[in-house]
Amino acid sequence: MSRVRVAIVGGSGYTGGELIRLLLFHPQVEITQVASGSQAGHFVHSAHPNLRKISTLRFCHPDDLTSCDVLFLCLPHGVSSGEIARYRAIAPRVIDLSGDFRLRSPELYQRWYGHEHKAPSLLSEAVYGLPELHRSELTEATLVSGTGCMATTSILGLAPLYRAGIVNQSIPLVVEAKVGSSAAGAKAGPASHHPDRSGAVRSFEPTGHRHTAELIQELGQSGGELRQTVAFSATAIELVRGILVTAHVFLNERLDERAIWRVYREAYQREPFMRLVKERNGVYRYPEPKILAGSNYCDVGFELDVEQQRVVVIAALDNLMKGAAGNGVQALNCMMGWDETLGLTFPGLHPV
Amino acid sequence: MSRVRVAIVGGSGYTGGELIRLLLFHPQVEITQVASGSQAGHFVHSAHPNLRKISTLRFCHPDDLTSCDVLFLCLPHGVSSGEIARYRAIAPRVIDLSGDFRLRSPELYQRWYGHEHKAPSLLSEAVYGLPELHRSELTEATLVSGTGCMATTSILGLAPLYRAGIVNQSIPLVVEAKVGSSAAGAKAGPASHHPDRSGAVRSFEPTGHRHTAELIQELGQSGGELRQTVAFSATAIELVRGILVTAHVFLNERLDERAIWRVYREAYQREPFMRLVKERNGVYRYPEPKILAGSNYCDVGFELDVEQQRVVVIAALDNLMKGAAGNGVQALNCMMGWDETLGLTFPGLHPV
Amino acid sequence: MSRVRVAIVGGSGYTGGELIRLLLFHPQVEITQVASGSQAGHFVHSAHPNLRKISTLRFCHPDDLTSCDVLFLCLPHGVSSGEIARYRAIAPRVIDLSGDFRLRSPELYQRWYGHEHKAPSLLSEAVYGLPELHRSELTEATLVSGTGCMATTSILGLAPLYRAGIVNQSIPLVVEAKVGSSAAGAKAGPASHHPDRSGAVRSFEPTGHRHTAELIQELGQSGGELRQTVAFSATAIELVRGILVTAHVFLNERLDERAIWRVYREAYQREPFMRLVKERNGVYRYPEPKILAGSNYCDVGFELDVEQQRVVVIAALDNLMKGAAGNGVQALNCMMGWDETLGLTFPGLHPV
Amino acid sequence: MSRVRVAIVGGSGYTGGELIRLLLFHPQVEITQVASGSQAGHFVHSAHPNLRKISTLRFCHPDDLTSCDVLFLCLPHGVSSGEIARYRAIAPRVIDLSGDFRLRSPELYQRWYGHEHKAPSLLSEAVYGLPELHRSELTEATLVSGTGCMATTSILGLAPLYRAGIVNQSIPLVVEAKVGSSAAGAKAGPASHHPDRSGAVRSFEPTGHRHTAELIQELGQSGGELRQTVAFSATAIELVRGILVTAHVFLNERLDERAIWRVYREAYQREPFMRLVKERNGVYRYPEPKILAGSNYCDVGFELDVEQQRVVVIAALDNLMKGAAGNGVQALNCMMGWDETLGLTFPGLHPV
Repeated sequence: MSRVRVAIVGGSGYTGGELIRLLLFHPQVEITQVASGSQAGHFVHSAHPNLRKISTLRFCHPDDLTSCDVLFLCLPHGVSSGEIARYRAIAPRVIDLSGDFRLRSPELYQRWYGHEHKAPSLLSEAVYGLPELHRSELTEATLVSGTGCMATTSILGLAPLYRAGIVNQSIPLVVEAKVGSSAAGAKAGPASHHPDRSGAVRSFEPTGHRHTAELIQELGQSGGELRQTVAFSATAIELVRGILVTAHVFLNERLDERAIWRVYREAYQREPFMRLVKERNGVYRYPEPKILAGSNYCDVGFELDVEQQRVVVIAALDNLMKGAAGNGVQALNCMMGWDETLGLTFPGLHPV
Repeated sequence: MSRVRVAIVGGSGYTGGELIRLLLFHPQVEITQVASGSQAGHFVHSAHPNLRKISTLRFCHPDDLTSCDVLFLCLPHGVSSGEIARYRAIAPRVIDLSGDFRLRSPELYQRWYGHEHKAPSLLSEAVYGLPELHRSELTEATLVSGTGCMATTSILGLAPLYRAGIVNQSIPLVVEAKVGSSAAGAKAGPASHHPDRSGAVRSFEPTGHRHTAELIQELGQSGGELRQTVAFSATAIELVRGILVTAHVFLNERLDERAIWRVYREAYQREPFMRLVKERNGVYRYPEPKILAGSNYCDVGFELDVEQQRVVVIAALDNLMKGAAGNGVQALNCMMGWDETLGLTFPGLHPV
Repeated sequence: MSRVRVAIVGGSGYTGGELIRLLLFHPQVEITQVASGSQAGHFVHSAHPNLRKISTLRFCHPDDLTSCDVLFLCLPHGVSSGEIARYRAIAPRVIDLSGDFRLRSPELYQRWYGHEHKAPSLLSEAVYGLPELHRSELTEATLVSGTGCMATTSILGLAPLYRAGIVNQSIPLVVEAKVGSSAAGAKAGPASHHPDRSGAVRSFEPTGHRHTAELIQELGQSGGELRQTVAFSATAIELVRGILVTAHVFLNERLDERAIWRVYREAYQREPFMRLVKERNGVYRYPEPKILAGSNYCDVGFELDVEQQRVVVIAALDNLMKGAAGNGVQALNCMMGWDETLGLTFPGLHPV
Repeated sequence: MSRVRVAIVGGSGYTGGELIRLLLFHPQVEITQVASGSQAGHFVHSAHPNLRKISTLRFCHPDDLTSCDVLFLCLPHGVSSGEIARYRAIAPRVIDLSGDFRLRSPELYQRWYGHEHKAPSLLSEAVYGLPELHRSELTEATLVSGTGCMATTSILGLAPLYRAGIVNQSIPLVVEAKVGSSAAGAKAGPASHHPDRSGAVRSFEPTGHRHTAELIQELGQSGGELRQTVAFSATAIELVRGILVTAHVFLNERLDERAIWRVYREAYQREPFMRLVKERNGVYRYPEPKILAGSNYCDVGFELDVEQQRVVVIAALDNLMKGAAGNGVQALNCMMGWDETLGLTFPGLHPV
């Protein structure tokens, strides 16, 4: 059986590199081309040193892309929407890991990204590529969007509660994300300069973060239009890979721990990459991103304050895996009708 | 003029070590004794290697304490309240940095610490040793309590808004603290084992943390009895010293940024250790604990979501300094009528 | 075809955990039992949280081990040599990852480990399990020893130069190893307490380290009995996984860079896990352990001071992989006549 | 008594910032100007956020410098030697912290820095500003050079052995430095990008490092012209501030530990910033840079291999303090005839 031919545009960044790594070991896929405007002609391993001796691929120029079965776009936000027609002409299936096709309406781009969308007619067609929420749509999709890394963590942590209809939406939802430095990309600058970034606990965009829009959209889809105030804030911490989200949700009825457990178990028991983590003992009692580096798992746990009818939801993932490239491959697996775990079985390391 | 004679009980832990370091360089103080049950007879620098060649003090046994002017207690929670009579006989002024005299009522100990208080009659007498809130009481106090490190950060960040009466208390207050490993003390164990603790982003006590009680008590004092649900959670992160608190507060009226600035400026402009940090440019735009290591500053900043009437408060400090020993020395300076900054002028390092 | 039945003794430590992780995904192996005295009855994932949902294995008691095809021993140094008869009765092939069968003579144990060896007659039979040096012996071996993590890094970096006979042995060999905290094992203690271990650059055993003995033995085997003074020292650094070795070797003739390249290329061009890393440009110009976490590669590079006839050899690996469990699985693959890379293809992450 | 008027050129970098911090609290000094080409007009605390609320100084343009008593130069290597006449006209005493006046002969600049020196006639006049070696010359000096951070650590660790004449110079000296990221300066770039720099153990210039020249020059001055091969290599590690040097020295006679102790004690017992660290027990048995951050100490320890007649010297300091700005202030104190510890008493933190 011949392999599916996959190409990547924007392959020199961190998400691109992770995608190459995953697809090189994917049993059904052959990487035909990896394009990069800045790195054309260089070996892929010059940008991604972990791939030395593993691949002799070289970056091609984006203009030299030839047709393939699936095209991944790993471009900066705002770029792919302007060139999307060209990319769709190259491949019948396009998976865009940027933010350009995540939101369902052009107005939302105006509001959250601050510019007009360049291909508004495609927004209703694109599928938000989170298999746990949009699996059936993915099987038919020809344009799939990647998902924001902090949005993914938050949505996967919270969606079961919203779907179950137990959230008191008259009280604001507060979501706090802690995130590693790789989420800010491969480009160096003063904020990522090691002496200043190391050991940082740095609030950024404490209000108005773009991922809020995804959160509102997807939690709304999970349980009907969201009527709730959403307060999302993010803090950069000393970590390269990984996100931990802590979210505070109030319930519309008094539920005990078993009831919450049941909600999560029903939502996720058949999901290959969702794990419930809530232990009474030991060091790793709640989800922790540390042991997820390189894996596609999203771990979810919670704690209940019965009296306050409050649930603290704790969710963790690797921002380059389940938060970007890994989730993209999972979406590909869905689209192609393959086993969803193909190429994604690495369990993560301990200790690390 | 002769120096004030100060002794320390429980001097082998991290807070004790920090206190010794500060008092050795304090121009008005002489350390007479440092007691430690486990380290008696050893040099102080065997437990605190930064004090090599700086002090030839040795730990004495707690039973060998003699009278002095001021006694600091750095004992584990629950110990000092059982022995407080003895300590007060040794010194006319006692500053207890544990949690034993932080709360004003015995019932609160039952609820938050899970045990009966052993000296309930002293709780009304003890002063919560935060100069920014209780300066005048400190000048007369003979029993002063230290303050919880995460509580201190949260209270200093939030108190001005409560005092100004602009918080909408019908909406819950959500406070998220990010905290370094030194806050868990000097005792080794599986949770602090480097391969497992390094790079951790670890939720602990996502509900029910004891510092919540201090927060409720002190914010209540700042603006009248608190009527609000308080959701406090803490996450241990990769960091040794430092706390960053992110708190979400909703306002009871629509205010602009200048109004919030004014509230903070009025509250803190004469405070020697409070700094407002909110820059438009640069890397350090909000408070960051990284550059506070060793300093007694508490930096406070905020961001406003005008539409949501929401303020995100960001506050940072060094948990062993303004969150423990440094604040204790500042309280001592208040009690003695000295310049509040004596012994506390170290500005922190950059980069570090 | 039925899988080879493998059991592990001492499975609750870091090397044991890594071995379980590798063997769970090994296409030719079935794990029959994992024994642990302290963890018997508990799920394997209670000690190794990365294996949640991946394996439902439980630890058995060491007394309950039943016969199998291959037995891995991951016990503390000095234990297995006293119980080796019992373990060899359980399995026809034993791979002992401790130090007990690494050295070829009992006198060396007296000198470097400070105690008599409990099974001296087996020392000549045991094979030092480094496939790059002992591949042919491994195919016949029934008792194989693991290799010291810092010794492995040093030997793999240096052996080609010794084998080529170009080292001036009248000048001492100086080897400096930089090593992460996981090399000291899973047991917590004051030296691994995060506030004290974090950011440490800590010399330990600057003279007399046991791994020196392996180095002398194996470099001697590579190029005839070593006549050289060997100075080995190690420094613990801020890192969980990984070793970087820097070694200073003087040559017995004036060689240019191409000659050194040729020596390494001839030694390693057919080795699946050895990579030569020496780039003129970019950030990753020499070997770095950071991008090797989880991989079985050993990267080797060098720099030449032509005038001084000095080569600085730089070698890196993951101490739990090529330095312990990964190398053990590679040795198993050799012993069984399988493709040496089975179960060991993970390339490492970037960034991480 | 009026304060000495000090100005700084190149004040926006890390060494400049550290110098400002120290001089702001120096009891005999008044900072008159801080010049920076790129930051002119901005507050000093915009580049050095730890100085917020501590100083209201603004950077001036270098062209606007006016006369003062002492001028510190914190410019990139190769700049000050071309402008030195102008700077000496501004102040009767100049302390240049760059590499431009460290070496005593123009040929050495050609060889190690790869360019001709622009003011060769001044090289014999300039004093290598290490008080422990050149104290008496400093009292008369009008042009003083700062010292290389890794060179300083190595020299202070080794000089006593050379001065005592006990080193076997027929065997090469091998010096391995481990160094934090702040030593590479405040300018961001790919090598300092946090995801790539974090957790790095990165060899750089394994041969030919410029600090080797200082080492050769100063060890030669300590014990007569050096006849020895010097192999110096450096490894960047996960750390912001700090250097640990491990050096391997062979002795020309068989000495016991007490003899080595005596050598060091005699050399350093009256030195205010040199500490001998060699403990039998505890976690901090040898020098560690971690607890030196912000302090001006250089800690030195050793281990002896009696049989090999080898001493492993271990030395640690903070590269921005005793390795740059702190040592500069100490040199200033010497030049002015003040107590050498003025402004330099901060002991370092523990834990940190």
